[in-house]
Amino acid sequence: MNAAPPFCFGLTATDGAARTGEILTAHGLVHTPAFMPVGTQAAVKGVHHDDVRASGAEIMLGNTYHLMLRPGAERIAALGGLHAFMRWPHPILTDSGGFQVMSLAPLCKISEEGVAFRSHLDGAMVELTPERAIEVQLLLGSDIAMQLDECVKLPAERGEIERAMKLSLRWAERCKRAFESAPAGRALFGIVQGGDDQALRAESARALVDLEFDGYAIGGLAVGETQSVMLDVVAATATALPAERPRYLMGVGTPADLLGAIARGVDMFDCVLPTRNGRHGLAFTRFGPINIKNAHHADDARPLDAESRCPAARDFSRAYLHHLFRSNEALGGTLLSTINLYYYQELIAGARAAIAADRFADYVSATKEEWQAHRDQDVEGR
Amino acid sequence: MNAAPPFCFGLTATDGAARTGEILTAHGLVHTPAFMPVGTQAAVKGVHHDDVRASGAEIMLGNTYHLMLRPGAERIAALGGLHAFMRWPHPILTDSGGFQVMSLAPLCKISEEGVAFRSHLDGAMVELTPERAIEVQLLLGSDIAMQLDECVKLPAERGEIERAMKLSLRWAERCKRAFESAPAGRALFGIVQGGDDQALRAESARALVDLEFDGYAIGGLAVGETQSVMLDVVAATATALPAERPRYLMGVGTPADLLGAIARGVDMFDCVLPTRNGRHGLAFTRFGPINIKNAHHADDARPLDAESRCPAARDFSRAYLHHLFRSNEALGGTLLSTINLYYYQELIAGARAAIAADRFADYVSATKEEWQAHRDQDVEGR
Repeated sequence: MNAAPPFCFGLTATDGAARTGEILTAHGLVHTPAFMPVGTQAAVKGVHHDDVRASGAEIMLGNTYHLMLRPGAERIAALGGLHAFMRWPHPILTDSGGFQVMSLAPLCKISEEGVAFRSHLDGAMVELTPERAIEVQLLLGSDIAMQLDECVKLPAERGEIERAMKLSLRWAERCKRAFESAPAGRALFGIVQGGDDQALRAESARALVDLEFDGYAIGGLAVGETQSVMLDVVAATATALPAERPRYLMGVGTPADLLGAIARGVDMFDCVLPTRNGRHGLAFTRFGPINIKNAHHADDARPLDAESRCPAARDFSRAYLHHLFRSNEALGGTLLSTINLYYYQELIAGARAAIAADRFADYVSATKEEWQAHRDQDVEGR
Repeated sequence: MNAAPPFCFGLTATDGAARTGEILTAHGLVHTPAFMPVGTQAAVKGVHHDDVRASGAEIMLGNTYHLMLRPGAERIAALGGLHAFMRWPHPILTDSGGFQVMSLAPLCKISEEGVAFRSHLDGAMVELTPERAIEVQLLLGSDIAMQLDECVKLPAERGEIERAMKLSLRWAERCKRAFESAPAGRALFGIVQGGDDQALRAESARALVDLEFDGYAIGGLAVGETQSVMLDVVAATATALPAERPRYLMGVGTPADLLGAIARGVDMFDCVLPTRNGRHGLAFTRFGPINIKNAHHADDARPLDAESRCPAARDFSRAYLHHLFRSNEALGGTLLSTINLYYYQELIAGARAAIAADRFADYVSATKEEWQAHRDQDVEGR
């Protein structure tokens, strides 16, 4: 077996704070800014991997919390790792499991040692320490692993935000140490915490940079704060991070969130919005969001977007998509999720091209104007 | 616009009572014996049309009952007909709606005039007469329309079976008359009724043949009787039908049912089993049925069938498919439904090839032996 190439990241263009780059992993190249579809339980909900790939996705996210509970990290390792298990031979990033333990598991208890929780599947007590979070991610074989961190819902007291940020830093150090046994080519990202407090964010970023991670995530956002608070924190945090490492804004967001964060120097995103909203009948398009369940689509023979790269957006009429949702046909959710994944990838590919051409601000304005123009036309149906 | 070619059917080979043929419709050719996936509400449940087509399906069935209630036959006509609405440019057969009115609708009342029922969607009273059943199917634009008939659950009294059969004959005549206005190239099939009574079946077949339909269906089977009773009725009915017209066994069945009916001269089938069972975790394969939810698949890295034409059957491990079902990921149902549709098409393509080579009996034996051999090996998991 050949040695895996080292994980590496290089910038290819900048335009203000916005930047394009390339992440090289053992499973291939990722162009940044990148949007990662979420394969929660080793599958993007309702969408075949082939369609995820065809949409333009170069990297997928897997959820450690779900996978460690079912089917189990050791089982996936025995079956050849997550890439082989789900047959996604392209790059995979896994989260640490911490965020979902703290938001989904009953009886979750956080201590210096780690997090203890009851599995929501069978009620068994499970411990997730920084060391176990790394072990699980190494078993899964992800290209990019995340440190275990504690994420605080906003608004929160400064003292509470600071405590969680400092605990996350101590866990970062333990994760870094545990990751020393990782095979070549694997990357570990630290996660900046600190809520909406700029000073705490700066302190967190500084301490993580001293530990030297392969990349840095901005965690603990999109947890209740406004978009403007979020983007202010993103802007300040991004400038506190080294230019030569990728920056990943976790769990964000809407198309507008992505454009705002790219403008502030973010390189990577993941979010369930395209698939979750797709399952519920909301399409993201060049023309802004379209709720296909609205009655006025019932007789509309036009496709969602005749110029989309997505076959489903071009080929099926709004009337047909509307019918599928009204009839509870699962194909409706599949088609709209696919349409949304394509739109996110088109949006971000457009951003990459615009940054490379030094006209990102124009791209953002033109994109938002098109959303707005059609939003006004379509407003009666909302 | 060019004139549509006339509907026509020609036999291409026979082997005993089994036969191969070709149905030419305005939307393309169908090789028989043919299996028609069921697109109940203008979609095959959980499976994209592209995958239905790729499985080898040349014709799809649409359910008049569902489509007339939602989105409505007039609406579909205004949107260009069912082919355009669902973007299935290949042949479509529609049922008359009668079977589902009688099995699904609350407060269904059958009279000489037709069937009156409450819509299960909004409680509105709806009338389905022979004339309206034809009108709806002409609005949908189906290539092959079915007469309205009354189907009796078995076992039933002879008097009741006879009454329904004779009513169905009178409706057949009214459908035939209503269909005289149909555009060129459209076909109308009569439906033989008569339950499990051979004399009534013969009488029904004779009367329908006198009316001269484009093809003949055998209805009212797979409604509670044993497979052997069903196949006896099929055999007797098929011989009472003209060799030069297609014969369609409605709503049947398992892979073994298909082979048994082909041996007795049936040309066309439809059934929800491949998709319904697929959604519930049962795969139809060369190796017999496999319940992928069984625990012993959890660590099985083998695909369902490495030699299948179906990518999902070749590419994904049993362990992964098992995981999708255990995790309630909709992709599991989609993949297994697709795998089953491919298997049905492979089975029936194998039957066509065997009939053409005059070795259909050998094909049936070999197929059943392979089911049985593996069934024994897999039995502990059942």
